[in-house]
Amino acid sequence: MATVQLESLEKCLERHVPPEELREVRRILYGKETRMLDLPLCALETAVERDFELKGLGFEAAPEQLRQPRIVRVGIIQNKIVLPTNAPVAQQVAAMHKRIGDLVEAAAMCGVNIVCFQEAWTMPFAFCTREKLPWTEFAESAEDGPTTKFCQELAKQYNLVVVSPILERDEVHGETLWNTAVVVSNSGHVLGKTRKNHIPRIGDFNESTYYMEGKTGHRVFQTQFGRIAVNICYGRHHPLNWLMFSINGAEIIFNPSATVGDLSEPMWPIEARNASIANHCFTCAINRVGMEHFQNEFTSGDGKKAHRDFGYFYGSSYIAAPDGSRTPSLSRTRDGLLIAEMDLNLCRQISDKWAFKMTGRYEMYAEELAKMVQPDFEPNIIKE
Amino acid sequence: MATVQLESLEKCLERHVPPEELREVRRILYGKETRMLDLPLCALETAVERDFELKGLGFEAAPEQLRQPRIVRVGIIQNKIVLPTNAPVAQQVAAMHKRIGDLVEAAAMCGVNIVCFQEAWTMPFAFCTREKLPWTEFAESAEDGPTTKFCQELAKQYNLVVVSPILERDEVHGETLWNTAVVVSNSGHVLGKTRKNHIPRIGDFNESTYYMEGKTGHRVFQTQFGRIAVNICYGRHHPLNWLMFSINGAEIIFNPSATVGDLSEPMWPIEARNASIANHCFTCAINRVGMEHFQNEFTSGDGKKAHRDFGYFYGSSYIAAPDGSRTPSLSRTRDGLLIAEMDLNLCRQISDKWAFKMTGRYEMYAEELAKMVQPDFEPNIIKE
Repeated sequence: MATVQLESLEKCLERHVPPEELREVRRILYGKETRMLDLPLCALETAVERDFELKGLGFEAAPEQLRQPRIVRVGIIQNKIVLPTNAPVAQQVAAMHKRIGDLVEAAAMCGVNIVCFQEAWTMPFAFCTREKLPWTEFAESAEDGPTTKFCQELAKQYNLVVVSPILERDEVHGETLWNTAVVVSNSGHVLGKTRKNHIPRIGDFNESTYYMEGKTGHRVFQTQFGRIAVNICYGRHHPLNWLMFSINGAEIIFNPSATVGDLSEPMWPIEARNASIANHCFTCAINRVGMEHFQNEFTSGDGKKAHRDFGYFYGSSYIAAPDGSRTPSLSRTRDGLLIAEMDLNLCRQISDKWAFKMTGRYEMYAEELAKMVQPDFEPNIIKE
Repeated sequence: MATVQLESLEKCLERHVPPEELREVRRILYGKETRMLDLPLCALETAVERDFELKGLGFEAAPEQLRQPRIVRVGIIQNKIVLPTNAPVAQQVAAMHKRIGDLVEAAAMCGVNIVCFQEAWTMPFAFCTREKLPWTEFAESAEDGPTTKFCQELAKQYNLVVVSPILERDEVHGETLWNTAVVVSNSGHVLGKTRKNHIPRIGDFNESTYYMEGKTGHRVFQTQFGRIAVNICYGRHHPLNWLMFSINGAEIIFNPSATVGDLSEPMWPIEARNASIANHCFTCAINRVGMEHFQNEFTSGDGKKAHRDFGYFYGSSYIAAPDGSRTPSLSRTRDGLLIAEMDLNLCRQISDKWAFKMTGRYEMYAEELAKMVQPDFEPNIIKE
């Protein structure tokens, strides 16, 4: 970690850069200014009482003649683990349910229609340990596990769609584990699930020890509030993953993540935002926050000493729009709920303006990729 | 344009943010710190005399046991047009040759091995006018036009590779025009050419009036100093375009561009940098700078009045590395030469670390894209 720990980049800039220059700095860094939402007092008070950051911003679209605006409020939640990692599993899960329930209540006060939690949100990100027990005990059925039932209650109670990324146990297919997001409709029904498509082999992300690449493809969920998809964590680094969700019609793509410090922080503001630009859709990048300590030492394969933590989860969750603009981040240090009001009409408006799909030449790329995976592929290299 | 015109984002931050916080701001915004190069006094003096910005930064890689470092110095040049757009064509071209010759001389003093100029560098970006004459007169043969000959002289004189993006006239194929980059080896031979793969239909970029999508694919040029490719301008928005250059082995991908103001400035720091991260290679984003005024009014199809300029070309050229770090930008206001010293071993080191290609699942995407382009394609949408 660096010597000075910034609470957030934005607050640092606000403190030091004079207002008239700050406006231009923000335009270059964050694009067209987002509108501050007027959030209800009860929600703001709840955030203070329960000690989490609450922030609401709005993205605008142009009025159209034939379509009504399609306004949706999306909420993303970043949080620390509540109990130490050596507390009993059931207690850890119950404490997380309670904490998330508290934040979702505030989201509901703010009129949020779709809420998404961070990756594997019911548990510490314990894959760094390479130990199976007790971590595999956090795995649940996507269809009727206790966490899905909890989310169904939230969905019905508050009339919102819940995107719940969990460690899934697939009992029907040989007790297999998966990294999965469950999508619960605002009706309370499970709309479906989607699995992490790309599994990292880097640093302490020893996830390939626990689960494999998902085979659910790039399905998109039609909700009452718009078409959504979920690109879990490391899939953020794969532009084709975002593209296929977008080609299947996603207007909002969630990226529930768990990522740390020096490893990825400078890449974090780039990748999900690039995807929102390249695919004419909204993207929501969600990271957990804080440190997670484990009882037994583990090594990282980086030539350094064994240690007991994964690194610092830097939060900084944000939402990006297809016009290149984005919200400020949630803090690097605290639990938080970020709300964005968006007019989904902006997706088609920006697509008509920039036309990346129309000019995409996907036939050419389908052919080139099909050749590339062949054993006899020869790169196209010109030599003197 | 905004009320305050920043010379550069970096200078503004340096002026206002205290040093210990600035270091952390820079880490979050720009990644691992780049090293200032010690450039020769004669080059620095030349830059002052000839009124251009000169900046040199270095990216480091880890030492390896079996490979020697592969150090290369890359120079990218951004510039204003020299003469007014209504000066005689031959005079405009001659003035640009002179100006670029002056900057390349400074690059050579700094030991630059590969230099790349901005898109269609010999001419104003006149496609906004939709007039054919005199602009089509700027088109030249890629193989033996006067600009290619000029670049061959530079290459031989200074022992450097020249990437020269021009408006090409292809006399052999029915006098067709193309937007092309010519790659001249440091031996002085034309190594080959590559054409712009994606043509914009947005704002004043009326390029589809003048030339079509290139059919040269994603060829990569093996030079004495490393494998390079050229993704021209609007291809920056297409992640698949970067990917295929990288799959063919590019270690450095140049993105010679011409882009303006509010339209794209917030996207500019995102896209080429995302490509360097996603593809484990270096990327060089080059934009022209300044205003270009035309004799006849033209319209932009944006419901606004006819006008005589394209908008403000904001410069801000930069170089990004596969580890998520990047150089500061050249200014938003002046001609400039940005030099980066890079150890190309970093590309494979980062690929081994992050492994996006190993985890890329290209078979799946080849299949999905092949389906997507079929007339009977049905998006994968889950409904309640």
